Amino acid sequence: MNRQQLIEQIRQKRSFLCVGLDTDPKKMPQCVFDLHDPVFEFNKAIIDATAPYCVAYKPNLAFYEAFGVKGMIAFEKTVKYLKLNYPDQFIIADAKRGDIGNTSQMYARTFFGEYDVDALTVAPYMGEDSVTPFLESHDGKWVILLALTSNKGSFDFQLTESKDGERLFEKVIRKSQEWGNDENMMYVVGATRGEMFKDIRKVAPKAFLLVPGIGAQGGSLEEVCKYGMIEDCGLLVNSSRAIIYADNTENFAAVAAEKAKEVQMQMSSLL
Amino acid sequence: MNRQQLIEQIRQKRSFLCVGLDTDPKKMPQCVFDLHDPVFEFNKAIIDATAPYCVAYKPNLAFYEAFGVKGMIAFEKTVKYLKLNYPDQFIIADAKRGDIGNTSQMYARTFFGEYDVDALTVAPYMGEDSVTPFLESHDGKWVILLALTSNKGSFDFQLTESKDGERLFEKVIRKSQEWGNDENMMYVVGATRGEMFKDIRKVAPKAFLLVPGIGAQGGSLEEVCKYGMIEDCGLLVNSSRAIIYADNTENFAAVAAEKAKEVQMQMSSLL
Repeated sequence: MNRQQLIEQIRQKRSFLCVGLDTDPKKMPQCVFDLHDPVFEFNKAIIDATAPYCVAYKPNLAFYEAFGVKGMIAFEKTVKYLKLNYPDQFIIADAKRGDIGNTSQMYARTFFGEYDVDALTVAPYMGEDSVTPFLESHDGKWVILLALTSNKGSFDFQLTESKDGERLFEKVIRKSQEWGNDENMMYVVGATRGEMFKDIRKVAPKAFLLVPGIGAQGGSLEEVCKYGMIEDCGLLVNSSRAIIYADNTENFAAVAAEKAKEVQMQMSSLL
Repeated sequence: MNRQQLIEQIRQKRSFLCVGLDTDPKKMPQCVFDLHDPVFEFNKAIIDATAPYCVAYKPNLAFYEAFGVKGMIAFEKTVKYLKLNYPDQFIIADAKRGDIGNTSQMYARTFFGEYDVDALTVAPYMGEDSVTPFLESHDGKWVILLALTSNKGSFDFQLTESKDGERLFEKVIRKSQEWGNDENMMYVVGATRGEMFKDIRKVAPKAFLLVPGIGAQGGSLEEVCKYGMIEDCGLLVNSSRAIIYADNTENFAAVAAEKAKEVQMQMSSLL
C-alpha cells in the first residue's frame, strides 16, 4: 500500500488507529480454546470486530514464534485472512529485524515476498546495509525503523548525545533519510514522551510515524497529535492490550470493538 | 553450557571455531535436493563432517524463516540433531532479537525454552529491559549482544562518539555489564578491524567475544587473536560461507571438513 492509499484510508475512516495483534494465549478468553486454532480464531474475531475503526494491524512476531511452527501457521493465516477480507488494511509485521546485507535480503524475501505484508519494523543498529535490502524494488512496501521506542530502556542508548549535540535517535532518522524516503520509510516513535514529537518533526517533517505506547503504556493521544500530527496526518497510533484484552469473556470481540470505536472517535475529533 | 564447560571444549579440541549454518538452498550442492528435507540433510552432513574441528554452531534464523514453516522445521531438526548427537557443541541461534520487556520474554521462552539453544544474539538498541528478560533464570544460557558488527553499516551508528568521548559500541558494552556478566553475556565483535579488539578489551577484559568476518568477509585470524585473545581464550570465531560452501559437488562435506580442519590447525597454533 502506498502513502496516498494509506492517507485515503485515514480520511475515509477518520481514524489512524493500528490494532496490535500481540496475541498471547495466556490472556485470551477461555471460549476460543474450544476452536481448532485458538490464536487465529481470536485474531479473526478481533479483526472482524475492529476493522471499521482502524486502518492497520500489527502482529508482533514474538508472540507467534513463541509457539514454534504452530505459531507461525497462525501468523500466516492471520495475514492471509486480512489480505483476503480487508484488503484496505495496512499490515505491519512487527519483527524488529536487521542483519548484514545478504541476511536482510532473506528477511525481505520472507516478509515482503512470502507473507506479502505492507511493512516491517527494522532495528537500525547495524546501519545502512542492514536496512536498504528492505527498500529495494518493493513497490508499496515500507521499512518502519526503530527511532525512539516507548520502553524504559530507550534511555540507555537512544538519547545518547554525540559530540555535535545530536541524539542517537535523531541521527538514526537523519541518516536513514539518505537511504529511503517518505514513501517507503516510517519511524517508530513512542507516545510516552509527547513533547519529543517536536524534535522528531524537525528531522522528519513529513514522515509517517508509528506510535506505540498509547493505552497500557500510558501515552497521551492528544499530546502525540499536538506535536506530531502533520497536514496529511502522518501518524499511525498503535494500541494492543487496551483493545484486544479489554474483556476476557465470550463478549471479548464486542468489547474490543467498543474500545476501538472510542479511540476512533477521539481520533476523528483530532484529525 | 556454562563458561567453564565451553573453555574445556576449546582446550580439548584446540579450537575456538564456530561454524555458521547460513544454509541457503541457492548455494547447496545439487545432490542434497534428492533427499526429503534438503536444508536439514545439508546441515546434518556439514555437522557430521566438521564437528571434530569446531566447538559451536550458529544457524542464522533468517535463512530458515525465509522458507516459512518448512524452514523453521529444518531449524528445529538441526538443533535437535546437534543436541542429541553432539551435546558438547555450543549452539547459537543468530536471531538478533530485541523488543520491549514482555515481548523479549516471549522470545526468551521460544529460544531457551522451546528450542533450548545455548545462546541467542540480541540487538541492543532498545536498552536494558529488552535484554534482561533473556538473562533471567536461564542457567548456562547466554545473550550475545551486538557491539561492533563486521558490516559496512557498522560505521553509521556504532562508532558515533558521545560528548564524553565514548563510542556507541563501547557504551553498549559498558552499560550492559550492569545487566549481565561474563558468565551469561558475550559480545559480537567483527573481525574486519583487528586493532579495535584492543579497545574492546579495555571495556570487556574477560568477556567472550563472538567474532564474525573471518573468511568471506576478509578479517584476519592472527590480528583478532593478537589483540582479542585472553588467558582462557575468550573468543569464538565464526566462519560460514568459507566452510559450508567451499565445494559444490557431492564432495561438499569432505571439503567442508578440510576447510574446518585448516582453521582448527591455525587456531591450535594460536592458542
